[in-house]
Amino acid sequence: MQLSFYLRLDLMNMKVCKFGGTSVATADQIRKVVDIVTSDAERKIVVVSAPGKRFSDDVKVTDLLIRLGEAALSGAETDPHLERVLSRFREITDELGLSTDISSEIESDLRDRLSNDKEDSSLYMDTMKAAGEDNNAKLIAAYFSLIGCDAKYINPKDGGLLVNDRPQRVRALSEGDERLAKLREESGLIVFPGFFGFTKDGTLRTFNRGGSDITGAIVAAAVGADLYENFTDVDSVFAANPTVIENPVPIKTMTYREMRELAYAGFSVFHDEALIPAFRKSIPVCIKNTNNPNAPGTLIVKERDYNEQQVIGIAADSGFTAIYVDKFLMNLEIGFGRRLLQIFEEEEISYEHTPSGIDNLSIIIRTRFLTKEKEERIVGRIHKELEPDAVIVEHDYSMIVLVGEGMQYTTGLAARAATAIAKTGANIEMINQGSSEVSLVFGVKVQDETKILKELYKEFFVKSYVKS
Amino acid sequence: MQLSFYLRLDLMNMKVCKFGGTSVATADQIRKVVDIVTSDAERKIVVVSAPGKRFSDDVKVTDLLIRLGEAALSGAETDPHLERVLSRFREITDELGLSTDISSEIESDLRDRLSNDKEDSSLYMDTMKAAGEDNNAKLIAAYFSLIGCDAKYINPKDGGLLVNDRPQRVRALSEGDERLAKLREESGLIVFPGFFGFTKDGTLRTFNRGGSDITGAIVAAAVGADLYENFTDVDSVFAANPTVIENPVPIKTMTYREMRELAYAGFSVFHDEALIPAFRKSIPVCIKNTNNPNAPGTLIVKERDYNEQQVIGIAADSGFTAIYVDKFLMNLEIGFGRRLLQIFEEEEISYEHTPSGIDNLSIIIRTRFLTKEKEERIVGRIHKELEPDAVIVEHDYSMIVLVGEGMQYTTGLAARAATAIAKTGANIEMINQGSSEVSLVFGVKVQDETKILKELYKEFFVKSYVKS
Repeated sequence: MQLSFYLRLDLMNMKVCKFGGTSVATADQIRKVVDIVTSDAERKIVVVSAPGKRFSDDVKVTDLLIRLGEAALSGAETDPHLERVLSRFREITDELGLSTDISSEIESDLRDRLSNDKEDSSLYMDTMKAAGEDNNAKLIAAYFSLIGCDAKYINPKDGGLLVNDRPQRVRALSEGDERLAKLREESGLIVFPGFFGFTKDGTLRTFNRGGSDITGAIVAAAVGADLYENFTDVDSVFAANPTVIENPVPIKTMTYREMRELAYAGFSVFHDEALIPAFRKSIPVCIKNTNNPNAPGTLIVKERDYNEQQVIGIAADSGFTAIYVDKFLMNLEIGFGRRLLQIFEEEEISYEHTPSGIDNLSIIIRTRFLTKEKEERIVGRIHKELEPDAVIVEHDYSMIVLVGEGMQYTTGLAARAATAIAKTGANIEMINQGSSEVSLVFGVKVQDETKILKELYKEFFVKSYVKS
Repeated sequence: MQLSFYLRLDLMNMKVCKFGGTSVATADQIRKVVDIVTSDAERKIVVVSAPGKRFSDDVKVTDLLIRLGEAALSGAETDPHLERVLSRFREITDELGLSTDISSEIESDLRDRLSNDKEDSSLYMDTMKAAGEDNNAKLIAAYFSLIGCDAKYINPKDGGLLVNDRPQRVRALSEGDERLAKLREESGLIVFPGFFGFTKDGTLRTFNRGGSDITGAIVAAAVGADLYENFTDVDSVFAANPTVIENPVPIKTMTYREMRELAYAGFSVFHDEALIPAFRKSIPVCIKNTNNPNAPGTLIVKERDYNEQQVIGIAADSGFTAIYVDKFLMNLEIGFGRRLLQIFEEEEISYEHTPSGIDNLSIIIRTRFLTKEKEERIVGRIHKELEPDAVIVEHDYSMIVLVGEGMQYTTGLAARAATAIAKTGANIEMINQGSSEVSLVFGVKVQDETKILKELYKEFFVKSYVKS
């Protein structure tokens, strides 16, 4: 009997679902989550965020917890902050008809955390911040049980979510995977809190970025899920930014590489790096809407038939700076480019592109990496170490990225794009094509970004559009 | 009297003219040179090459001298080689009606050189090779005198053409400039041999590349010439390669930068680096035809009004290799690009372009820098030192370069070019725009080069061409 039971589980498809903050912000939202999960027997592991915003001016529970922790660290009064957190949870438990024991447990948990050792403020804050996800997972597991589902909360320490001990860059350790994989063998539903894991010596650490998305991806990868469903509050990823393009077409299927390129240039529906653990194991990812679960969403896979659609999306991001270096006979100086890049490396600035002429080279970087002092120091170093004829710094560049798997092999695509841009009267400051097969990048002035985006969208997505 | 004489010289415009090998290959050609020089009183300094080819299968005197020198070094018989050199000069002196003393002097000079110390074979060969220019300059000076011109031969040692002592990279030293500048004060015509100079300790060294062109440019710069006329055997520089495009339009005026970009991508009318000493001092350079001196030629200047013509020329060069490196999350690794370039630097390979995607980077280099072993070693090092997901080497790239000062500011130019390329059905493998304001580079497959060049020429130079 035991054997056949295991076999059955192994043969069954299995989905890991992650629900973001707005999906678990209220009792009503949590009921939707429960409906979604119970409507599909393959949905086996549920990763949850802390309760997010209920309305646009609302404060997320995680942010309330940060205020609470900071008050505790600074020796200020903590009770009003604690009460705000508790009232958010109480509102949910009351409306869901959960036992008041849950609220008491949450209060007791928070008071425990508050009384932790404060010597390492970073560790202290990590423990405080993680309380949102952790208690919400317990709460949601309790609600599943209340409505008769076989569900249990699993703590990341018990589950095996091991992380490294680099506070600046917390990452999951593969050593935890074997234990995490066993989650597949658990009977019933598992509710797992997002956002944090434990180091080998049992210290709680939160992920720096990507929060619950990354927990879901790690778990989905470790258990070898057939699908990782990332529930958020949009129906799908769109082909262009909906605040610029009215009703852009949804993307039904795209590849990991396409997603990376889109996310790079400003697509912020999800945090792309967070999904990487899933990509590494070739787990398909589906972006879906908790508030409209029947919409197909956007499926992100390893490969797609790119003959169907050459350009899948157009992204744009401002905030780039070009540092132009000109030196007569530069191309005869072996090592010039390397020495220039080394200056940026030593200043800990990663660069995006390095378009080059015969006697000149530009370094395109994200402006946010520069302070005025850093910029002056870099320009000074270039002058001193490379003795160029000129160094010119230009801010206010935008990068417009056409994304599509295999587009490099589509004859005439660059011509169509450049012609669309020319139509706006804008000038192309930079074109980068040649390494990636997935994107074509145009550097433009930030003031031209919107009109170019609109014209490119027309060219590649508005089918009835008649070319002039 | 003396004072007013100097003043007059200083006020008069002054041209340095250089005549290449074919321009001084025969008595008839030398008569043309003399006619050209004497027809313009401003032509004050004449730099000459060794006699070049008289017909396409002919052997240049410099190559005959190399054979002679190599025979001497290897202990082989030298007389037949010496006789071939002497007969070339004798043919010229006889036809010009010069005294037989000149031929005797040349023979005596060559025998002197042959008897030089052979311990340093490189120095020995330099002295042999330089004999062509040196004796031709003496010969031509004698002919000017014969027809009644006040002309004299000046040896680079006396003239002040000082060079460094790096046999692999012989360059003029600016310390010689003061002495060279005094050439301006000499009365009468000066005939100066090209191709060689002397180190500070009096050792003769030939220039590695650029021969007489570079001597002319150095002298023109040092004397502050108003114009450096570079006489060769074509009427002008053309907007495209005449072996591909029938009767391409001549370029009347272009800038130094435009010339650099064209020369880089295969324009071989002259050796662009050779002209650099003139550019550094902002001396205008005119490319003219000895056989058609009334043709206006091509004037190369520091600045031109680029509103008149956006694209001045289209160059194409094959023989490029792309090394594509792909690594997931590459853009998070600060220093990845620098470390990649360092491998090429350590292998002493200069690179041309580095187009980049999010997770990938290509290095475009000239294929001639690679041997099979070097390529394998580089690919091996990239795998070992950078642990990429993939390294792909693709040979047989051509670079097509549209050149024109200020073209980056011309809206729609990239679109016109990309559309013309699309019309050929060829695929664009790479586009590089963004650093240089003077060029737009397309990487294409070598088999598409000719048809693309033709289509681009039609687009930018054939005015009556009706767009489809």
